Amino acid sequence: MNPHRIRRAVDAMSGYVPGEQPSEPGVVKLNTNENPYPPAPAVAAALRGATADVLRLYPDPVSARLCERIAEIHGARPDQVFVANGSDEILALCARAFVERDGAAGWFEPSYSLYPVLAQIEGIGCRPVDLGPEFEWRDPLGCGASLFYLTNPNAPTGMLHPEEAVRAFCARFPGVVLIDEAYVDFAPRSLMDLALSSDRVLVARTLSKSHSLAGLRLGYAVGPAPLIGAMMKIKDSYNVDRLTQELALAALSDLGPMQANAARIVATRDRTAAALEAMGARVCPSATNFLWIRPPRRPAPEVYADLRARGILVRHFDLPRTAGWLRVTVGADADMDLFLAAMRDVG
Amino acid sequence: MNPHRIRRAVDAMSGYVPGEQPSEPGVVKLNTNENPYPPAPAVAAALRGATADVLRLYPDPVSARLCERIAEIHGARPDQVFVANGSDEILALCARAFVERDGAAGWFEPSYSLYPVLAQIEGIGCRPVDLGPEFEWRDPLGCGASLFYLTNPNAPTGMLHPEEAVRAFCARFPGVVLIDEAYVDFAPRSLMDLALSSDRVLVARTLSKSHSLAGLRLGYAVGPAPLIGAMMKIKDSYNVDRLTQELALAALSDLGPMQANAARIVATRDRTAAALEAMGARVCPSATNFLWIRPPRRPAPEVYADLRARGILVRHFDLPRTAGWLRVTVGADADMDLFLAAMRDVG
Repeated sequence: MNPHRIRRAVDAMSGYVPGEQPSEPGVVKLNTNENPYPPAPAVAAALRGATADVLRLYPDPVSARLCERIAEIHGARPDQVFVANGSDEILALCARAFVERDGAAGWFEPSYSLYPVLAQIEGIGCRPVDLGPEFEWRDPLGCGASLFYLTNPNAPTGMLHPEEAVRAFCARFPGVVLIDEAYVDFAPRSLMDLALSSDRVLVARTLSKSHSLAGLRLGYAVGPAPLIGAMMKIKDSYNVDRLTQELALAALSDLGPMQANAARIVATRDRTAAALEAMGARVCPSATNFLWIRPPRRPAPEVYADLRARGILVRHFDLPRTAGWLRVTVGADADMDLFLAAMRDVG
Repeated sequence: MNPHRIRRAVDAMSGYVPGEQPSEPGVVKLNTNENPYPPAPAVAAALRGATADVLRLYPDPVSARLCERIAEIHGARPDQVFVANGSDEILALCARAFVERDGAAGWFEPSYSLYPVLAQIEGIGCRPVDLGPEFEWRDPLGCGASLFYLTNPNAPTGMLHPEEAVRAFCARFPGVVLIDEAYVDFAPRSLMDLALSSDRVLVARTLSKSHSLAGLRLGYAVGPAPLIGAMMKIKDSYNVDRLTQELALAALSDLGPMQANAARIVATRDRTAAALEAMGARVCPSATNFLWIRPPRRPAPEVYADLRARGILVRHFDLPRTAGWLRVTVGADADMDLFLAAMRDVG
């Protein structure tokens, strides 16, 4: 124990650094994959109908009504559903529930930069698996982890992994596979069926991106009941508050508005990608609400800084595999026109 | 790894069982220490003023404005404040941040029954320390833990530990002391000053009880900046959602309504305690919003069941030290009159 009485593994690590939430007004915010459109009208109606008085009572600790609705959406049973305070809670619980203390977790490099932080917190081994030179799939079967975090479509690259390769990996991997489908509503297909048929695949979803509810904190996992039950045992007792349960239920009552927004974003994304390619940028094929681009002329850190100076905030990850690239959230059409105009000058 | 691929410690344990949240209407709910009065008018006003559109953006990951207000209330710096998704999150983070894997956590028996569950989840040692025969203070100094959970006033007994004894313990205990002051707004004094002067004492608070906001999920810890920083590193990135941050800020903007409700509850508590003692019950001296009682004539489990049959829900903990007692939340006066009338029949 060090002088401050902090566990050594925690004392030694750095925390995860979330994308900047700028306080100055007028910033074109394309850095944290938020949705430019408001949440479904049913969410606003539920908020208008909410009363403070019921907040004196604890929420349902297991979010039963939400579990039922999510089960209905995916053709699952309620005991195959876990509702969380954002899908980040699911990712953290997986490291705590499915890896022995001398075990390891795996993930692709590059992928969601939270994964190594979760492994550090738990003091478990890290088994990063390099994607190919074009960020393409590499089979992580022999990585030696008992938990593999598989973001699909991947972030920050935006690429959807090849379906048959993922299925073959999941069929043979001896540990738990957490398929993080945070961006799947912008993609042509989901692997949710694996969560309902395998005894070791979980699929995580979030309302943060496609449902325009990053501020609400609601994620869920679907998968085998024993794995769901293990997460239930170790979560905080009342992990999802009353208002969040109510508003999430409203958001999931009718998927139409979310799907319409997602379709608009996909159209904007594809138009933006084509324009970037026309100016010479490299653009990874995206199945998400963001683009992973290599600027046509100048180094990514300089482009990042020049865009920032013009009030356009994108994301740069300063690591060997990612330092030459920028991740750009797909905003509204007007935002992307501002971004494209700026790129013509500073890209 | 067992066949279901769940970490052995998690597979072997039972989860925490929160108090029942009955779905049938008309139940007099005196089982989970909820406040019978609505939250402060400022909370309702903040809720009416909330709009769904901003929920598309992530919340402030560190709840900075709340930290500032809480710091102001307690005469602390903002870096001495940690804001959490309920104080349960703080309790769990303490077990993860301040105990090595081969270390142990301690607590009093009886006290909050979540503590052993948190130790089981982390696979750390358990160092329960028996309170005296009248549930009175015993010095836990030699318990061998590197983290001690000290609920003060204690639950489920309601008793405030003697101030000088707690101060002497905190001055000498070599590990971290988490003083859980969940019920302190119903007590004559707080030990918050220890959190501001010691390098190893944290004080946790919650808005669930005195602020009538159990459904909101907002707790906070005050203490030495290095300990607060360690919890910051390992929490979920966006642990408190936007609406919760806004409504909690409203609740903390003016403590007057909360204090008025607490005073009403204290008056009801003392009247109820006197009536119970008059009918021969043993009643622990309570500094909380609940009473810990031994029924005058019949065994506690039978009284619990008979009250339940009459639509009055209290709490019974079926463990050796607690099996003869009932924990009864102090509700509104009318609820307590119903409870007292029933006790005259079945107690």
